[in-house]
This record gives sequence, C-alpha cells and structure tokens, in this order.
Amino acid sequence: MTTDKPRLCRTFQTAPAAVPRENTAKYLDSGLSATGFEKPDWLVPDIEDGTAPDMKTQALDNIVERLPDAEFVGEVWPRVEWSYEDERFRERGREQIRTLVREVGEFLDGVVVPKVGRLDDVKRAEQVVAEAEREYGYPEGSVGLSVIVESARAVSDLRAIAEWGGDSRLRGLVFGPVDYTAELGGRELDGQQASWDSLLWSLSNESSANDLVALGGPFDRLFGERAGVRFYNGEAYADQIEREAQVGLDGSWSLHPNQTAQANRIHMPSPDELASAIHRIESFDEAKGGGTGAVMVDGQMVDEATYKNFVNTVETVRVIHDAVPEQTTTLYDDSQLDRALSLDP
Amino acid sequence: MTTDKPRLCRTFQTAPAAVPRENTAKYLDSGLSATGFEKPDWLVPDIEDGTAPDMKTQALDNIVERLPDAEFVGEVWPRVEWSYEDERFRERGREQIRTLVREVGEFLDGVVVPKVGRLDDVKRAEQVVAEAEREYGYPEGSVGLSVIVESARAVSDLRAIAEWGGDSRLRGLVFGPVDYTAELGGRELDGQQASWDSLLWSLSNESSANDLVALGGPFDRLFGERAGVRFYNGEAYADQIEREAQVGLDGSWSLHPNQTAQANRIHMPSPDELASAIHRIESFDEAKGGGTGAVMVDGQMVDEATYKNFVNTVETVRVIHDAVPEQTTTLYDDSQLDRALSLDP
Amino acid sequence: MTTDKPRLCRTFQTAPAAVPRENTAKYLDSGLSATGFEKPDWLVPDIEDGTAPDMKTQALDNIVERLPDAEFVGEVWPRVEWSYEDERFRERGREQIRTLVREVGEFLDGVVVPKVGRLDDVKRAEQVVAEAEREYGYPEGSVGLSVIVESARAVSDLRAIAEWGGDSRLRGLVFGPVDYTAELGGRELDGQQASWDSLLWSLSNESSANDLVALGGPFDRLFGERAGVRFYNGEAYADQIEREAQVGLDGSWSLHPNQTAQANRIHMPSPDELASAIHRIESFDEAKGGGTGAVMVDGQMVDEATYKNFVNTVETVRVIHDAVPEQTTTLYDDSQLDRALSLDP
Repeated sequence: MTTDKPRLCRTFQTAPAAVPRENTAKYLDSGLSATGFEKPDWLVPDIEDGTAPDMKTQALDNIVERLPDAEFVGEVWPRVEWSYEDERFRERGREQIRTLVREVGEFLDGVVVPKVGRLDDVKRAEQVVAEAEREYGYPEGSVGLSVIVESARAVSDLRAIAEWGGDSRLRGLVFGPVDYTAELGGRELDGQQASWDSLLWSLSNESSANDLVALGGPFDRLFGERAGVRFYNGEAYADQIEREAQVGLDGSWSLHPNQTAQANRIHMPSPDELASAIHRIESFDEAKGGGTGAVMVDGQMVDEATYKNFVNTVETVRVIHDAVPEQTTTLYDDSQLDRALSLDP
Repeated sequence: MTTDKPRLCRTFQTAPAAVPRENTAKYLDSGLSATGFEKPDWLVPDIEDGTAPDMKTQALDNIVERLPDAEFVGEVWPRVEWSYEDERFRERGREQIRTLVREVGEFLDGVVVPKVGRLDDVKRAEQVVAEAEREYGYPEGSVGLSVIVESARAVSDLRAIAEWGGDSRLRGLVFGPVDYTAELGGRELDGQQASWDSLLWSLSNESSANDLVALGGPFDRLFGERAGVRFYNGEAYADQIEREAQVGLDGSWSLHPNQTAQANRIHMPSPDELASAIHRIESFDEAKGGGTGAVMVDGQMVDEATYKNFVNTVETVRVIHDAVPEQTTTLYDDSQLDRALSLDP
Repeated sequence: MTTDKPRLCRTFQTAPAAVPRENTAKYLDSGLSATGFEKPDWLVPDIEDGTAPDMKTQALDNIVERLPDAEFVGEVWPRVEWSYEDERFRERGREQIRTLVREVGEFLDGVVVPKVGRLDDVKRAEQVVAEAEREYGYPEGSVGLSVIVESARAVSDLRAIAEWGGDSRLRGLVFGPVDYTAELGGRELDGQQASWDSLLWSLSNESSANDLVALGGPFDRLFGERAGVRFYNGEAYADQIEREAQVGLDGSWSLHPNQTAQANRIHMPSPDELASAIHRIESFDEAKGGGTGAVMVDGQMVDEATYKNFVNTVETVRVIHDAVPEQTTTLYDDSQLDRALSLDP
C-alpha cells in the first residue's frame, strides 16, 4: 500500500461511520459509492467527533463490514479517537486501531489520529499502529498514519513532527481549525474568524520539506439562508479551498459531496491553466535552444525557476489522470490532454 | 498570589508612574481608582518608557507609596527598566525590582520586564525576581514575571521561552510592536504599518501550549483630527483589538481609560455571542442524547469540536463574573446570566 | 571588504551575465554603468537561472573580463549555480566560485548561492567559499556569502541558518518565491498568487536577530498590456516593494533598471517621512528635557520606543548619503538634508 510516488489527496472527505438512521452506515455507503467529481481521493470513515458516543461500536462494525466489498478506488483512512491530554481517548483509539488492522488491515491505507500533542504524543500514536501491524502480520509501514494538527502543542512541535515523520509511516498532516480555535481561545467577531494563514503556510512548508501531504481543515458553514431560502454555501467554501491551493496545500477537507466536487476541481489545474503551462513550457524550451536563459512570454519573465511551476501543472494532470481518468477526460478536451500527457519537460 | 486557574487579563493598562504635574502620580491614581468597564484587569505602573529619565526615582516612590492603600481589585504589575543589549538598563531594572519586592511585595502580582532578548536573557531576568523574592522572604513563585516580546531575538526564541516559561514564574507574553518595528526596520508607508499577524499567531499559540497569557501591543494613535476637530480614535483601536481577539490573544494593551473600556468589552462575549453559545450547547446536548454525533444548527455543523468553542464562551463569562460581577451584571440581562452560570456542559 | 557597519542593500539587481546578442555582456555592462537612481546597491551578475545552459562559460568569462575595469561603486555579488538536491549543480557552483575568487576575488563582495537546503547544505556552500578564499590568498571572511531561500528545507531551517550565519561570512538572506512556490506546489488562482507574508516576516526577524541583510524576491510580471498597449508594470512592483519595506526587509530584488529606480526610492525615507521624523525627534527631546516621558505629537503618543523609529529614519538617510550622495541631494532639499545630517539623537 505504501508507495514512493506522490500521494494524490485533493480531497479528504470525512463521513460519520454510524448515524441514528435505519441504515446506520448511510454516509459511509454514500462515500464509498460516490462517482465522478464527487468521489474523494481519500475517504475518512469517522469514528471520532462525527459519531455520537453511544454509536462508536456500531461505527467500527460498519467499517469492518463495508470495506471488504466496497468498490471504492481511492484511499481509505478511518479516523479513530485520541487525545494528547486524556488517556481514556488514547485507550479507545488503541482498541479501534487494533480492531481495524486485525479485521480489515488489507483494505486500509492508514488511520487518521486526531488531537495529537507534541512529538512524543505523535510517536505514541505511531507505536500503536506499528504494534497492530506487527501483531496481525502486515509488512512494516503498510498501514499509514496521518494526524490532525489541532492543538497548540502540535503546532509548536510541527517542525519536529514533520521532520521525524519524513522517515516514518506518517503520510499526512491535516489542519483541525475548530479544536485549534477552541484551544487558543480564538473568537468569531463580526462574523469573522481567524483564518490561520501562517499555520497553513507552515503546514505546507513542513510537509514539502519532508515529503508529506498537507491538508486543510473542514468548513462547517455548509448552508446559508437568506430571505427564507436555505442553500449550499458554495462560494465561501470555494474561497477557502482556493486560498489553501495558493499556499500549496495538497488537498482540502470535505464534509459533503458538493464540497468534494468543488475541492477535486479546485485542486486540479483548470483547462486555461493547463493551456498556459503548455504554451510557456514550449516557448521556454525553444528559447533555451536558442541560447537564452530567460524569455518574456505575455509580459512574464520565464526562466528555469518559473518553468518548474508550469511543469508542476502538467505533472499534476498526469497524476490525476492515472488515478481518476474519468475526471481528466471530463475536464480537458482530448487534444489538450494528449499534449499534456506526451510532453517531456 | 499564584493560582492555577486561568488568569483573567483582558486589559493590560500602562500608566506612567510619575509625570511632571502637581500630582506626579496623577495617572497611577487614576488607574488605581478606575471603576466599571474602565477598570483594567491588570494595571501596569510604568517606570520605563512612559516615564522620563529624571522622574524614575519619583515613579518608584509613587508606586511604593500608593499600592498599600489602594483599593484596586485587579492585578498590579509594575514595568521596570531592562534591555538585553545594555547592562546599565539591566542594573537599573534589578534595583527597581528589589525595591518593589522589598517595599510592596505583598501588593504585587508580578513585574513586567521589557526588551528581553533570547532565552538566556529572560532567565537572567527571572533570576533577579527569584533572588529578590527569596531575600525578602516571599514564597517561591509568589512574584510573577511577564515579559515584553519586542526584540527580534525574543521572537526568534519565542518557542523556547514559552516552553521554559510553562514551568516557571512566567505568566504573560506581551507584544511590543513599536520597539519591534524599530529593530526590524519596518516602515510606515501610505499610512500603513506592518500588523505582524504571524507574530501574534505565534504568541497566541505558544502561550496556549504552555498555559501563559498572551497580550497584544499598544495602539498609540490615541486621537484623530479632521476638519479642526480632535477626537478619540475609537474605531481604529477597536479594529486592532478585535483582530487580537480573533487569533486568541487573552487581552490587549491600553494607554487610556477609553481603550480599557473598549478592550474589556471586546474580550468579553457579547450578549448575542453568549445567547448563541447557550443555544448551541443545548441543541447539541439534546442531539447527543438521541445518538447523533453532529447536528446542524442554523446551517452550521456542530460536533464535539465546535461544542468546545461554545463552552469556552460560557466559561469566559463565569471567570469574568467571579472577578468583576459589576461588569457581567451590567452587560447581560439577569435571566441570560443565570442560565450561563447554571449550565453544566 | 567586510565591514561592521550596516550594509546598504536597497536593491539586489540580477543581470544575466551572458545573453545571445552581439554583445553577450549587454545586461552586465548596463548594470555596471547605471547611474542615479538606476544604480543598484548590489549588482548580481547571474550565471544561474537567467543564463542559458550553453552560455554559462561565456557568462563567467564576461564577469572576469568586466569587473577589473568597471567603475561601479556599489557591491558586486555574482550568482553561481547550486542545488541542495543535485550534486552536479553543486560541482558546477564550486568551479564557478573558484574561478571567480581566483580571477577577480578583489573585485567581489561575495557570491550568491541559490537553492540551498537545510543548514548542512548552507555550511557546505560556505566551505566552498572558505576554501577558495584560502587557496587564492584572500583574508578570512573577505569573500561574503548570501543565499537564496527558496526551498522548503531552507525555510524549515531558517532560524538555525540565520543564527549560524550571524557568526559566519553569511551576509544576506534573499527570498526566491518562484522556486519556492514550485516546491510547495502553490497555485495561482484568479490571478492571485500566495504572497508568503509569514515567510517574509520570518526572514526579516531572523536577519535582524543576527545582523544579516534580508531581501525580497523578484517580481517577474515586468510588463502589462491592455487594449493593445504594452507598458511597464510599475504599480504592481511598487506595491510589492512597499509591503516588503513595511515588514522591515532591507531591500528588494530588481530585474530591470525601472525596478531598481523604484526600489531605491521606496527603501529610502520620503521627504515627508524625513520631515516628520525630524519634527518628532525635536518635540520629544524638548519634552524629555521638561520631565515628560511621553508626549503627544499630532495625535500620536511618542515615547522612547516610538522615538527609535524616527531615529532609524534619520540614520538611514545618513547611510544612503555616505554611499550615494547624488541620490540624497536629488531627493531632499538642501536645508532638510543638512538638518538630518547634523541632528544628534
């Protein structure tokens, strides 16, 4: 399950693993069977905050029952319970991780551990996964770990956690703004919350420095209402995701199929972006052949450094095409996609 | 004087401890006798930058003379002289701290030490307080220390200072933007200064990770003038304080009773905020009883994480009510306050 | 060449050291002979990204040939090749550094090394300079080093690099946003790129804490076009530079004589700024004489801390006047300049 190539995670969609409905796995089933742009790259069956205390056992049962038969082609990363400041949550998390690895270890890409504290606490979580993996006979490193960065202590140790993580089973660093805001005592004033831009930058930087995936936090104002009509809050979510993409986060958190569809698209080069990248790559290659190190294209000075950004764009398209060709063939026209796939920068 | 419960410090009001007026303690007296929303949580008699060089002795005398008889119910934290880069200031600060502890140690909550440098310099300041405390027979840790973070070195070591501080007499980290801007060579252009948002975030995070209080810096454009009329610059100050509250600073610096009144209010949940928190706590408790881990309230998805933010709001109201009941009874109506005080989340 | 006084670097102008023109040194010659506000404080003959692969040897030859006879009065800092992740680039950089020091060591202030990684890589670059300096008989520390901070690893180690650098031949930390954005995977969306404000703050802080020079990155949208007319993009560049000056960067990157002229001016106090600083210094000195520690000037409370900012302004004018008196005498009127030069704060 562990691979060396960059992990595609434009979307990290949590789904409560049990809800008080006739089908308690309603949201889990919905995530596992999503198609097109609504299919998340990572599906995160949630045993933690999205599931009520007396549904935790059912949540675990649902995951164990559903995964073996699911035809979901993305990655699956259940979120278990944990807390750097409360041993009871860690004990429950330990049992949940053991059950998941024992019962459905081969269908998991890893587990998501929330509310981690300083580096020592992250290492403690890693040990739990390592022990379960060993005990149930999986190859070392085959069950990944992603953590939710949502305590002041984890942020304080972010650099150390990421550096340690680069040589471990750690795969993803995910921001958890709601707990984080509570811990810092951040306030919403005039309808404005802190956007924690510096933290997102730090998350993006440390992930890049250590080959980890960096993911944004949930946007919980799912719906707006005005003059009596309730509607999906699509503008505000897209604004948040665009901001995350600008600073280089690999993907975003989704709570809803609409959010998944938007985040998949925003974390994917637009047709214009791809066209522009191809054009600049070709212009630069031509200029370099003629002895020029930097060339002006449409008013922008393009050199080796700028060039890398355009190459990134093309490579992202390729990675997405490998994973979900139905998305690339939907978004780009055939000739453009062919050109991107055949380019050898 | 040292307590384990969270320290309330919505307002850190500095008052020059001596000015060239008939009553040299005019501003000190004014701070010590303030009432209602103009009473700061922390009063900071200033022997440092707010007091002229030839008034320093008088400033110390005024504090020693006034504190024993003052009926001020908040905390008192004189600011002494210090400098990481100039031994003469450290020597003066040492004498000022010794005098304060010797003469009025029982009336102090701690001392504020400005212009600290790297961790070593902060430890040096701590030693001065520890020695005075021991020499004059006060229990260990009874005289607190807060430092003003206003040098590039202190910011560079902020994480280390806060982590060390969590196990020491250190109580507060206060931002000093004016010296800081001078040290970095920051410029005001088109009437815009750097707002040092990343630093405020870092201050808030490290304080939360180590149970310290984080405080914003002074806003010195006290007055505006337009078309011949001079007026208190209340909008701009409130904007700054709101920004500080959003990122979770515990309180703000005040240079004037008007600023104190505004900062006390802004760092206190508004009646609407309290009403909304109570409503969401009650809705969530009800949902959890019915087996749901997350519930939509007015378009927002509320789960255990969101819930903590609402509990924070109610707890802040309680802490303020314990300290200054005249403020809570003025701001909230009786039934709302009763509900907040009786809630058991 | 090494001096203890603050290094003036308002402008860091790169010039491709060889281009496929009749005069391959066209841009190098242009930089070396610039006058007035178009003269950069640091000229950076570029052997790296601005020069095409098959022109590298010519680029080195051009520098070696031009420097001895140039009458350029600013500092000269060639940029060589390097890469923390590719030994071939480091090997080329090593040869370029050796050639430069051997042939024109006495005409260089230092070399600029791009794409450095963690502290170990920066030390590796430093060793190359140290060895060349020793081998060719230059005094220890006479050939400076500046590095371009453009990898996630360098940013992760920024604090350590700067602290180590404070006791080494390191002089400048220069931001490289284009490579950096590529490495983090940052995206341009709706024409908006990440502005990396937190990183600029961090660069400014660490430089100030360790007596280094901090410089902003290039702005490559040199030209705009609208309704068929192509024009120099002067507003957008000035906006970026002003933002850099606000957070205390010492200077900015320039790719064009127009950019140099703007950056030299923006990183220089305006006549109004200088007048205001002189007025506040004089008012404060008068107040302090009268026993007041803080005084209101035009609605602003001025104390020892605020005062330092005004003194900074005057001192910057003096440093610029020492280096390029034709710029100060052009910008300020005689009486204002005399007053600034004679003030003794």
